[in-house]
Amino acid sequence: MALTIKATTHITQYLYLQSPTKIIIKRNPNIRIQTRTKPRPQFFYSHPMSVERGGGDGVSVIKSSLIDPDGGPLVDLVVPEKDRVSKKLEGELMPKVKLGKIDVEWVHIISEGWANPLRGFMREDEYLQSLHFNSLRLEDGSFVNMSLPIVLAIDDDDKEAIGSSPDVGLVGLNGDLIAILFSVEIYKHNKEERIARTWGSTAPGLPYVEEVITPAGNWLIGGDLEVLERINYNDGLDHYRLSPLELRKEFDKRQADAVFAFQLRNPVHNGHALLMNDTRRRLLEMGYKNPILLLHPLGGFVKADDVPLDVRMEQHSKVLEDGVLDPETTIVAIFPSPMHYAGPTEVQWHAKARINAGANFYIVGRDPAGMGHPTEKRDLYDPDHGKKVLSMAPGLEKLNILPFRVAAYDTTEKKMAFFDPSRANDFLFISGTKMRTYARSGENPPDGFMCPSGWKVLVNYYKSLQTDEAAQQPAVLSS
Amino acid sequence: MALTIKATTHITQYLYLQSPTKIIIKRNPNIRIQTRTKPRPQFFYSHPMSVERGGGDGVSVIKSSLIDPDGGPLVDLVVPEKDRVSKKLEGELMPKVKLGKIDVEWVHIISEGWANPLRGFMREDEYLQSLHFNSLRLEDGSFVNMSLPIVLAIDDDDKEAIGSSPDVGLVGLNGDLIAILFSVEIYKHNKEERIARTWGSTAPGLPYVEEVITPAGNWLIGGDLEVLERINYNDGLDHYRLSPLELRKEFDKRQADAVFAFQLRNPVHNGHALLMNDTRRRLLEMGYKNPILLLHPLGGFVKADDVPLDVRMEQHSKVLEDGVLDPETTIVAIFPSPMHYAGPTEVQWHAKARINAGANFYIVGRDPAGMGHPTEKRDLYDPDHGKKVLSMAPGLEKLNILPFRVAAYDTTEKKMAFFDPSRANDFLFISGTKMRTYARSGENPPDGFMCPSGWKVLVNYYKSLQTDEAAQQPAVLSS
Repeated sequence: MALTIKATTHITQYLYLQSPTKIIIKRNPNIRIQTRTKPRPQFFYSHPMSVERGGGDGVSVIKSSLIDPDGGPLVDLVVPEKDRVSKKLEGELMPKVKLGKIDVEWVHIISEGWANPLRGFMREDEYLQSLHFNSLRLEDGSFVNMSLPIVLAIDDDDKEAIGSSPDVGLVGLNGDLIAILFSVEIYKHNKEERIARTWGSTAPGLPYVEEVITPAGNWLIGGDLEVLERINYNDGLDHYRLSPLELRKEFDKRQADAVFAFQLRNPVHNGHALLMNDTRRRLLEMGYKNPILLLHPLGGFVKADDVPLDVRMEQHSKVLEDGVLDPETTIVAIFPSPMHYAGPTEVQWHAKARINAGANFYIVGRDPAGMGHPTEKRDLYDPDHGKKVLSMAPGLEKLNILPFRVAAYDTTEKKMAFFDPSRANDFLFISGTKMRTYARSGENPPDGFMCPSGWKVLVNYYKSLQTDEAAQQPAVLSS
Repeated sequence: MALTIKATTHITQYLYLQSPTKIIIKRNPNIRIQTRTKPRPQFFYSHPMSVERGGGDGVSVIKSSLIDPDGGPLVDLVVPEKDRVSKKLEGELMPKVKLGKIDVEWVHIISEGWANPLRGFMREDEYLQSLHFNSLRLEDGSFVNMSLPIVLAIDDDDKEAIGSSPDVGLVGLNGDLIAILFSVEIYKHNKEERIARTWGSTAPGLPYVEEVITPAGNWLIGGDLEVLERINYNDGLDHYRLSPLELRKEFDKRQADAVFAFQLRNPVHNGHALLMNDTRRRLLEMGYKNPILLLHPLGGFVKADDVPLDVRMEQHSKVLEDGVLDPETTIVAIFPSPMHYAGPTEVQWHAKARINAGANFYIVGRDPAGMGHPTEKRDLYDPDHGKKVLSMAPGLEKLNILPFRVAAYDTTEKKMAFFDPSRANDFLFISGTKMRTYARSGENPPDGFMCPSGWKVLVNYYKSLQTDEAAQQPAVLSS
């Protein structure tokens, strides 16, 4: 494997650098701030570049810790080793709440500071701000982005068992206490309102809603989280699960002067690679010396017909082995969040979490975190809204948004290329659905669509699915 | 009639005072900033008092224009008299869009600066910010609150007729051109998403949705508005429709040093009056010399079973005639907005608009702008959420929020009084529904619930309704 970061299971705790080293560089005349030629509607502002500029002295300052975490130092809610036993004993005496798989993913997220400065499951004031304003107001009056409610639901029995206890133990999937929620607050879980405001739809069939919200209890419980041990999944992929702190250390180690994040939950084809390589080229042109790509597949809950995480990770590793992406300037890591498929609301979360992981550039595509409407023949979201909402979102001003250029298969050049509308007929758009159909049927996509070793991973996966399906047919039919 | 402001139809245009006079007063030791004894969740901040405090020199500054309009000078989009004919000729040559009754109410709202600094129906960037963030970002990076999308829907035929014309004439109910929308932008009207994000529900039976959105076209058109003449309704109530500018002038004329707004769409009973009088008392205690009440009934669209505007205005006038509220310190005016019944989202609009009208204190009750869920047996919103959301809303920091104290009928004292939980059984809660039932059946409410002359207005209204209903019975049944 040519993946550049993998043996990280030995990494335990880092101290966060609260005073990042500053590197003074000469202002490069090639650094351009994108200006808009078209007059803009009154209230729209594209976010300024995060490069800090000196006061006309020809000097720009770029931080080696390129972008500060949201709202202060990165939280680390894992109990120090020395306190673990006593904290566990303390927790064992508390009323308990049993977590589901996706609750544990959120415990993981909160504990490592992906949702910085959030220190636990949301209390009602945080929940309401998230739901209504997609942001949280800090003590100094500034805002951090917080577009998804990060909440823990409990049912009537849990609520009764908790009674007036201020603290609650959280129990993982195997029945062990894994975390404690201190100074809890319990409030109503109005599911309809949460769904409507988060998804802009209450149609049946929204994957996260069906999986998580509909079966959940009618109460939410917020509080301050402490996690007994770093969350691990023991699926052979934990070495990819770098925390925001570990990623920041790695960017510093590589002396990155720009980090551009690419969020994905699909296999990487050559169109994606073209875009990522082109982004690096543009950043170099802008004057950056060592832009590093954070290839950051989402690792939590995905809907049933998405490609599973292990298959995607294998595919991504082939893409780097084949040199389609450069291992020297790429870090592959897993973003442990579950997927909401909540379009413009969710893309803010995807971007915000990457700020906390140290990325100062974020690539945004068409219809990010979108999907087809579950009951109507249309996209659930306007494909342009994700990009627009992201560029206007409170709390994301310091992040540079890089809109995705559309790539498609150029049938004349026989490779993935940026779409040229002047010769539209030369281009073939291969959707995720189309790609899966190819892989499922064993048919090869056009040459140059994806590196052959990466494609093979997918074909093998779909073959194994068919074998599984055949094995599950009732005996009477297979006889 | 004892109403203090009524002959205002002669008022035409005022210049807005961009540099409001400042009055220097000694800091009064009775001015108390409410502090919270209970520890607050991490991100919650109650808004600071808007009284500007000097730097420890014992001097407070209170502006005679008590609170600045949102986002700069108050807009006034009524075309000056001298340009009216030429502007009308210009507009007549443009493609036309026919407005509905509620569209005209919004034209009215925008034209007078209630939605300051909005200068027209929202373009897509404004719409998306309103929908997702309940606020608009200004050029200086600050936010103004904007929780309701203020949009104009058009259908496919309108869109085709407009074609590539940059400007569109807006035609009123009688077929006359009443306004022009310049530099228009047309974008998709995703009704489901708009409803879900605004109401937190897509249940059938939401009054504004059924009246306005469901029958509307699939496109929205934004642009810069100019209105040919001040919007009038010729219903005998136009003299109550003071613009934000006129209200500010009136507050200055009365030398108000605090203005507290009371939003309502129901008759005023003695519990409301108790609250308003008590608020004045509290403001005097805080050191203000001349707090003025803005009794500000909503005048636009209301649902069918609400009491109509003319009846409410007559009832309000009786309350002042009877001296239940003091005419010297009360201004009664109509807030021309239509009602959304959108709870926590709408209460922000109600408060924001009153900032623009010059109010620096806003009274908020239980479940503001709420209603019963249209299909389930519960409130649509948590009754506390309106108050909480209002206190945290971006852009409303400069407004002082005064939570409503609950008043009920004290059966021992035989009057409306603040509810005392220590003798809960002594109190009778008379809901709006209960009040309407009394009035409809001709039964008198307990003595002291409402001034007799005001009550008579309601009884007469419900009597006239029954007469109307009887007259509408088919002849075969009445024979």
